[in-house]
Amino acid sequence: MSKSKYAIGVDLGGTSVKVGIVSEGGKIIKKTDVDTNAKNGPDSVLASIKKGIDQLIQKIDKKDFIGIGIGSPGSVSPKKGIVENPPNFPGWESVPVGNILQKHYGLKCSVENDANAAAIGEMIFGAGKKLESFIMITLGTGVGGGIIIDRKIYRGMFGAAGELGHVSIDYKGANCNCGSTGCIEAYAGNNYLVRWVTEELRDYSTSLLNFLIKNNNNQLTPKLIHSAAEQNDTFALYVIDKLGNYLGYALASTINIFDIGKVIIGGGVGGFGYRLFDSIEGTIKERVLTPLRPRVKVLPAKLKNAAGIKGASAIAFYKA
Amino acid sequence: MSKSKYAIGVDLGGTSVKVGIVSEGGKIIKKTDVDTNAKNGPDSVLASIKKGIDQLIQKIDKKDFIGIGIGSPGSVSPKKGIVENPPNFPGWESVPVGNILQKHYGLKCSVENDANAAAIGEMIFGAGKKLESFIMITLGTGVGGGIIIDRKIYRGMFGAAGELGHVSIDYKGANCNCGSTGCIEAYAGNNYLVRWVTEELRDYSTSLLNFLIKNNNNQLTPKLIHSAAEQNDTFALYVIDKLGNYLGYALASTINIFDIGKVIIGGGVGGFGYRLFDSIEGTIKERVLTPLRPRVKVLPAKLKNAAGIKGASAIAFYKA
Repeated sequence: MSKSKYAIGVDLGGTSVKVGIVSEGGKIIKKTDVDTNAKNGPDSVLASIKKGIDQLIQKIDKKDFIGIGIGSPGSVSPKKGIVENPPNFPGWESVPVGNILQKHYGLKCSVENDANAAAIGEMIFGAGKKLESFIMITLGTGVGGGIIIDRKIYRGMFGAAGELGHVSIDYKGANCNCGSTGCIEAYAGNNYLVRWVTEELRDYSTSLLNFLIKNNNNQLTPKLIHSAAEQNDTFALYVIDKLGNYLGYALASTINIFDIGKVIIGGGVGGFGYRLFDSIEGTIKERVLTPLRPRVKVLPAKLKNAAGIKGASAIAFYKA
Repeated sequence: MSKSKYAIGVDLGGTSVKVGIVSEGGKIIKKTDVDTNAKNGPDSVLASIKKGIDQLIQKIDKKDFIGIGIGSPGSVSPKKGIVENPPNFPGWESVPVGNILQKHYGLKCSVENDANAAAIGEMIFGAGKKLESFIMITLGTGVGGGIIIDRKIYRGMFGAAGELGHVSIDYKGANCNCGSTGCIEAYAGNNYLVRWVTEELRDYSTSLLNFLIKNNNNQLTPKLIHSAAEQNDTFALYVIDKLGNYLGYALASTINIFDIGKVIIGGGVGGFGYRLFDSIEGTIKERVLTPLRPRVKVLPAKLKNAAGIKGASAIAFYKA
């Protein structure tokens, strides 16, 4: 570990903190996983992060590290490394996580919100390596977004930009947790997806999915939809196409504003594979302004396993 | 005309070319208006532009001019001043308008599409003078947009960014001329607006508007809606509120992506006044993500008369 440089990537989640040492080439050299202990407040979360880092950096010379990168939920002021109001972190208002760890380790520490970290990860190590500009959308419980313009993350005026999950596709559509209506998150976020699929499944009593969930709607997950689709279940294939349509509607509006044609899709539902990507790309091309159509391309994210750690470490490389 | 600097602003329209000499302070010193002659092809359009400029610059020393700014319909490559496929300009594919005029007059000539010119005009002379970043939306036959980020126009990868008119608010909504569905232009563009107002007017036989249009739907115009609203006609007031809602839906999505809270509204329908602005602002605040709400402010454009000439001249000052 002497010739090349390494970064420490910290993927801060509500349940666990995943920490890894990552090479310049994006390889994870070592990694670990500790309980976040979010319920005991900010101090114990900071202690958990340190515990994870300490497990990895014993016997390693600090000068081999370019810095620490942290991907965090909540709203982040990257300049000061302040994390504000991460959801599911009780007792947390505004904590200068970056400054605290920078002092403690004597290493540069850069913080970004997790959606931006995912976009930076794809730019440095993944599907965005050769792209000047792209739109990254991450599908999970929520729908997150990050916008890369000319190899820089676009943050907006107060660091809150890129909330693609809250582009509305129907002003009188599904209710979103954010308080608005028709946000794409209210169709493509895991729980919302399960809800509309459950409802539509009632009309498809012959779908394999009924068997897979043992006729118990509470068992329905995106993973089982995927399994049914892999066995060519008509209903599951229809669901994937429809999800792709929904995402395509939101992305067409986004592309018309940004004039950025390349879209990278990450997160669990991204596992639906090429059928989903084709549906998204086809829908965008049908809806986007004519001159933009030839430039539209939907790509799967490349960082799969430990994408959180790699994305976090990419922040450190990006800022270096 | 010697102490201070002046620019020539050219507002290229399908019917007429409006040309003016504009001071650094945004005052029009002299202006003129000539037929575009679009039907006779690019050469005769260029001749019309020259005719307009020539009428104004006689007896004026060239060194008093900082340059020529042109606001043009169609898609524009600002670096080379090339205008491509302006709608309603027959026989026009790709014409380097900027280069041609620059050579002819020996003055720097900068070209932007008209929506971007309007945004630059507000930034240099109007409601955006003191704003770092803002979203400009222009309401007319079409709905145009321009995005100013950190005092720069955001152009996207190929100069096509900012097409706010084609943010969809309903994926199964009104058909838009662009081929997509539910674009805000298909609700707020003049002809579309007249269409849905005409339809709803059927249920409001007591509205003053019926009297103003002499019960002839073909007479309905945004101006008459405005007149009726000024006389407190319930239906006309409802129309303005509803138009504000539609615009607010599209703008809430846009603000969630850009994290830019300031919005400037220009164009004819902007004449609906504070009732429209209040409806737009209220709708955005109901729909945008909570942390963004306090930063939302909807402002009327300041450039009214000859906004096109002033916006075009602002390009020259901006580029200087």
